[in-house]
Amino acid sequence: MNSCDPIFLPKGYQFSAVAAGIKPSGKPDLAAILCGAETRGAALFTQNCVVAAPIEVGRAVLARAHGRVRAVLVNSGNANCATGKAGIRDCKSMCAQAARLLKVQALEVFPSSTGIIGVPLPTEKISLRLQPLLANAGASVGHLRGFADAILTTDTRPKMASIPLRSGSAAITGIAKGSGMIHPQVATMLVYLLTDVAATASELNSALRAACSESFNTISVDGDTSTNDTVLLLASGESRVALRTVKKEFQAALLEVCRSLAEQIVADGEGVQHVIRLNVEEARTRSEALQVARTIANSMLVKTAWAGADPNWGRILAAAGRSGLALDPRKITVMIGDQTVCKGAVACGFDEARAHEHLSQSECRIRVRLGRGKASVEFLTADLTAEYVRINADYST
Amino acid sequence: MNSCDPIFLPKGYQFSAVAAGIKPSGKPDLAAILCGAETRGAALFTQNCVVAAPIEVGRAVLARAHGRVRAVLVNSGNANCATGKAGIRDCKSMCAQAARLLKVQALEVFPSSTGIIGVPLPTEKISLRLQPLLANAGASVGHLRGFADAILTTDTRPKMASIPLRSGSAAITGIAKGSGMIHPQVATMLVYLLTDVAATASELNSALRAACSESFNTISVDGDTSTNDTVLLLASGESRVALRTVKKEFQAALLEVCRSLAEQIVADGEGVQHVIRLNVEEARTRSEALQVARTIANSMLVKTAWAGADPNWGRILAAAGRSGLALDPRKITVMIGDQTVCKGAVACGFDEARAHEHLSQSECRIRVRLGRGKASVEFLTADLTAEYVRINADYST
Repeated sequence: MNSCDPIFLPKGYQFSAVAAGIKPSGKPDLAAILCGAETRGAALFTQNCVVAAPIEVGRAVLARAHGRVRAVLVNSGNANCATGKAGIRDCKSMCAQAARLLKVQALEVFPSSTGIIGVPLPTEKISLRLQPLLANAGASVGHLRGFADAILTTDTRPKMASIPLRSGSAAITGIAKGSGMIHPQVATMLVYLLTDVAATASELNSALRAACSESFNTISVDGDTSTNDTVLLLASGESRVALRTVKKEFQAALLEVCRSLAEQIVADGEGVQHVIRLNVEEARTRSEALQVARTIANSMLVKTAWAGADPNWGRILAAAGRSGLALDPRKITVMIGDQTVCKGAVACGFDEARAHEHLSQSECRIRVRLGRGKASVEFLTADLTAEYVRINADYST
Repeated sequence: MNSCDPIFLPKGYQFSAVAAGIKPSGKPDLAAILCGAETRGAALFTQNCVVAAPIEVGRAVLARAHGRVRAVLVNSGNANCATGKAGIRDCKSMCAQAARLLKVQALEVFPSSTGIIGVPLPTEKISLRLQPLLANAGASVGHLRGFADAILTTDTRPKMASIPLRSGSAAITGIAKGSGMIHPQVATMLVYLLTDVAATASELNSALRAACSESFNTISVDGDTSTNDTVLLLASGESRVALRTVKKEFQAALLEVCRSLAEQIVADGEGVQHVIRLNVEEARTRSEALQVARTIANSMLVKTAWAGADPNWGRILAAAGRSGLALDPRKITVMIGDQTVCKGAVACGFDEARAHEHLSQSECRIRVRLGRGKASVEFLTADLTAEYVRINADYST
C-alpha cells in the first residue's frame, strides 16, 4: 500500500492546513483534524525521558477528558521540546485558543509538534493563522492530503494508508510523518489513525498497543528515539458500527494500516536508498529476536555495507555477537535474499554477484537464524548513506 | 603524546615486519615481536560472542603456558574470523611453524589477526614469508615502527606511546591499531604493551584490567565491537626492576600509555574530522555515566551534528533521554566548550557562533551534567562523516 492507493474516508472528520511561517521554507506547517462530540481517542507516546511539551500536555488532556477529543492541532518546523515551563504554557495556550474558536473545551484539543528541538514555539505566528485554519476545514480527500503534507519535516513525501471495514460501511485511515530520529520504543513519530467505528477509549487503547507492537515498534532508521513520538487513534462512531462487533477485522485492518505507514516511514528515511526487511528467527523469545534485530539494524558498519550493496555478512554476524545475548555462533545462519551466505558462523560458498544484485534493489531481505528457539520478528530498517550525513550535519545551522 | 614523541625501548624485545601479500595493496601485513624466556604476559579480549580464531587460540595458549610468551605473530588484511574449525587449525599451524623456526614451544606463540571477516586465512602466503620475518627481527626504533605499520588496516597512521620508568632504568611502550569497529567492551582492537619490568602473569593481569577500564573502555568510534579485539601486556623482566617495587609508578605509566593509544585510535577513526572529549558528570555511578556517554557517543544524529560543527544540543539531550536511565530532564545541563547551552533541559542564551567555532576545532569538549550524583566519566568519541560512509560502503567489494 502507498499514498497513491485509494483513501477510504472514515465519517466524522474534517481536515485543514495552512502555512504559518514556522518553517523557513514557507511550506504548510500548521494543520488540524476536527471531529464530532462522540469521538474517543487513545494514544501512545515516546519512551524517551526527555519529552516535548505537547507530549506532556497531550497525555494529560487525554486522561482528564477520559479520551474525548474534538480536535488535533499539529505544527511542524518546531518540536516545542526542551523549552521548559514556557513550552508547556505555549502549548496549552494554543490549544485554548483553538478551543475557543471551535467552541469546545481546551481539554478536548490534542496537540502535536515536530521539528527542531530547543527553540521556543512561535506562538504569535500560530495565533494569527488559527482562525483561517479552523474555518477552512473540509472532509475531502484533498483536505486529508493537505493535512498529511503540512505535518512533514525532512520527509520527502506524505504517508497515508487506508482500509475499508464491513465492506465499506466503516474505515480506518492513517496519516504519518517521520524520516529521521526513528527508533520507536512503544510509540513513534507522529501518526494519526482515524476510524468511524464506535469504541470506548479503553477499547481503542488495547487495539492501539497491539497494533503498534507489530508495526512501529519493529522499525528503525537511525537508532535515535524522538522526544515527540505520538501515535493517536481516534474513533468517531459515525459509522454506527461498534468496534466490539468487528473486533477481529478491526484489529487486522489497524495492524495493516500501521504496518503500511511504518514501511512508508522507513522507505522515506533520511538518505535511505535501500529498505531492509530483516527477519531474525529461531530466538527463544520475541524480545530476544528484537534485541538482535535492533543491534544489527543500528550498526553503522552494517548499515554502510548495505549502502554499498555489499554482501558483507561478517558485519551482520559481528553485530549479532555484540547484541548482549549469549549466542552460540556455531548455530547462526545468515541469508541474503534466497542465498545462505553463512552457516555455523562460517562462510558458505555463495554467488557474490547475485547477493550484490539482491542488495542493489530498493527493498532487500536479510534473514538471521539464531538456532536457539522458535520466536521471530520481522524488522524494517534502512541503509546509512552519505546523504543521511549531509542532511543531519546541516539541520540547525 | 603522539607517534612522533620519543620511544623508550623496553629491553628484551625484537620486532619485524614483511609484506606477505595478504593485503591487496602489497603493503606490509605480517609482523612479529620476539621476546626472551622470562617474558610473562596477560591479555584482555573482545566481549563479542562472535570471536575470531586467534582470540580462541590466544586465550587458550596464554592459559596453558601460564602466561609465558616467546613471540607474538600478527597478520593484517584478514581477521581469520567466521572461518570455523579450519580457521582455528590455520591459526595453530601458523603458530607451530613460527615456533619451530624460533625453537620455542607452539604454546608460547601468541597470534593476532585483523582485517576482513569470513575469508579463509591465506596460510600459504604466510608460511612462505615466516622465515624471513623471523630471521630479520631487530630491537631498534626503526624495527618497532615497521611492526606498528604492518598491523594497520584502514588506519592512516601508526599508533605508539612510550613512558620511561625509574628514571629510564625500565620503560613501557605500547603499539596499537584500530580505526573502525571501535566500541570496546572490556578489551579492544589490537594493542601490544611491552615493558621490561619483571612481573608475574597475575600481576600483569590486574594492572592491565585497571588501565583498560580507564582508557580503551571509554572510547567509541562507531559503536561496533570488533570480533578480534585484543590487548596484550608483556613484561620481559630484563630491566631487573620488579613490578611490585614500582607498582604505583608502573600503574600510572601504563594508564598514560593506554590513554594515549586510545586517543590516537579515536583521532584516526574512519573519516573522523572532530574528536569529542565527552564528560558525563553527576551520575549516581560510573557505570550510569558510561551508559549515558555511550548512548550520546553512538547516536548517529549527534555524531552527524558534530560533523557539521552544529551546536545542536537538543540531539545530545534527546540521546541522553533514551539511554535507559530514568533521568530527570530538569536536572540536566549541557555545555559546549566553556558555554552552558542548556540548563534544566531548556536553552540558555549562548553565543552560537562561538559554540560553532569551538566545534570546528579538531578536538572539542562536551560536558553533560545529570544532577543525580557524584560519579563521572570522560569518554572519547568522534563525529560521523560522509567519509566514514564512503570507507565502509566500499570495504569488501
